[in-house]
Amino acid sequence: MPTMQVQVISSVNEASSARFHHKTAVIIDVLRATSTIVTALAAGASCIIPAETVMEARALQRPGDLLGGERFCRKIVGFDLGNSPEEYTERSVAGKRIILTTTNGTRAIHKSMRADHVLTASLLNAGACARAAVELRRDVVILCAGSHDEFAIEDGLCAGLVLDRLQAHCPVSVEMDDFGAAMLALYRNQSDAVKETILNGMTGKKLLKLGMKKDIEACSAIDIYQDVPRLNGDQLTRNG
Amino acid sequence: MPTMQVQVISSVNEASSARFHHKTAVIIDVLRATSTIVTALAAGASCIIPAETVMEARALQRPGDLLGGERFCRKIVGFDLGNSPEEYTERSVAGKRIILTTTNGTRAIHKSMRADHVLTASLLNAGACARAAVELRRDVVILCAGSHDEFAIEDGLCAGLVLDRLQAHCPVSVEMDDFGAAMLALYRNQSDAVKETILNGMTGKKLLKLGMKKDIEACSAIDIYQDVPRLNGDQLTRNG
Repeated sequence: MPTMQVQVISSVNEASSARFHHKTAVIIDVLRATSTIVTALAAGASCIIPAETVMEARALQRPGDLLGGERFCRKIVGFDLGNSPEEYTERSVAGKRIILTTTNGTRAIHKSMRADHVLTASLLNAGACARAAVELRRDVVILCAGSHDEFAIEDGLCAGLVLDRLQAHCPVSVEMDDFGAAMLALYRNQSDAVKETILNGMTGKKLLKLGMKKDIEACSAIDIYQDVPRLNGDQLTRNG
Repeated sequence: MPTMQVQVISSVNEASSARFHHKTAVIIDVLRATSTIVTALAAGASCIIPAETVMEARALQRPGDLLGGERFCRKIVGFDLGNSPEEYTERSVAGKRIILTTTNGTRAIHKSMRADHVLTASLLNAGACARAAVELRRDVVILCAGSHDEFAIEDGLCAGLVLDRLQAHCPVSVEMDDFGAAMLALYRNQSDAVKETILNGMTGKKLLKLGMKKDIEACSAIDIYQDVPRLNGDQLTRNG
């Protein structure tokens, strides 16, 4: 591989399955699905099973499994857990399978299933994801989940961070599309004000209004986990 | 108007007519339509008439009018002028009507026709466009034309520059969507390397390969014109 080509997609509705062929997909939904996923796996959950609908989530549940997720940012009625990383503690999730359904993040994972490899990244584990993508020796498509089919700045910021780390770790030259170059510049411009940038974004403001500032703080830390959630069949597991 | 709301659209195929209702539209196609348009008007062309197709351009031509434009970056057979700003000199265009058809830029102008006001911006006249938009006292939609339905970094950079100038000139607070905030950060990160950023972009590389480096240089200068091309009926004229 003389160069690594990286494309960045701005929101789920821009993603067609064909774009993922023979690629490593890196799915990003900083607020909050992919932050919650890595937090849960780091806390010892055995796997995360992304489900597109509430009904599908309930159908997948086996005895001992936990149901997690949100609709309109809030916990789904009858579910064990919402979509706040802080709920996914060792005490609540260690050793458990978690069926997770969220508005954008799990849809994004399903969109990318034709990729050779699917990783999920957040600010919390962007560096580890970049290193894993380098080792997989494929071109990369980074999918920013966004919110309601619109670009979300926290996902763009994380895409820029992944690109920054890919450039640092990749032994060959990293070539990116124009949107990727823009996201890298966004990250470099805002790297000292990540939390503030997220708080000023559309999703950040919405969560703030709902009293979920702690979630934004939990999702804003950079590279605190070395875990790389990776899709095996229908399950995301730690480091594949 | 307690705040000015600004939305930024990443490429023509993201633009639905409904988004322009009651707004001022600012159309950007740095390489090269909107750079050429302001250059032609500054050189004394009486107006620019954007046409979507070559056939439409020919049908609109009256005696004395010039036909300008490109397909696949090159001058159209039988046309008087291509899409290089440098062809639009006082000597060639003063006093003339120009019918212009380009791949992305003129399509973008047609998409925005439901707006209350339509301005075209480039790096060459971004500051003047921002001041004009402030005076028009409407919320703003900035449409980055892009290239082949993809985001183009030079258009994003120019959107960021327009936002930077809006913030400087607007007496009320400028609120932007997440994509706008990202473009502003892109511009601020790359403001010392505008030409290099454009040369590394997809369209920049294509024009370079075609031997059109001079065009990129002509389109990279910042705020050298005070002219604001503005749509009146089907004609773009200088300062409305």
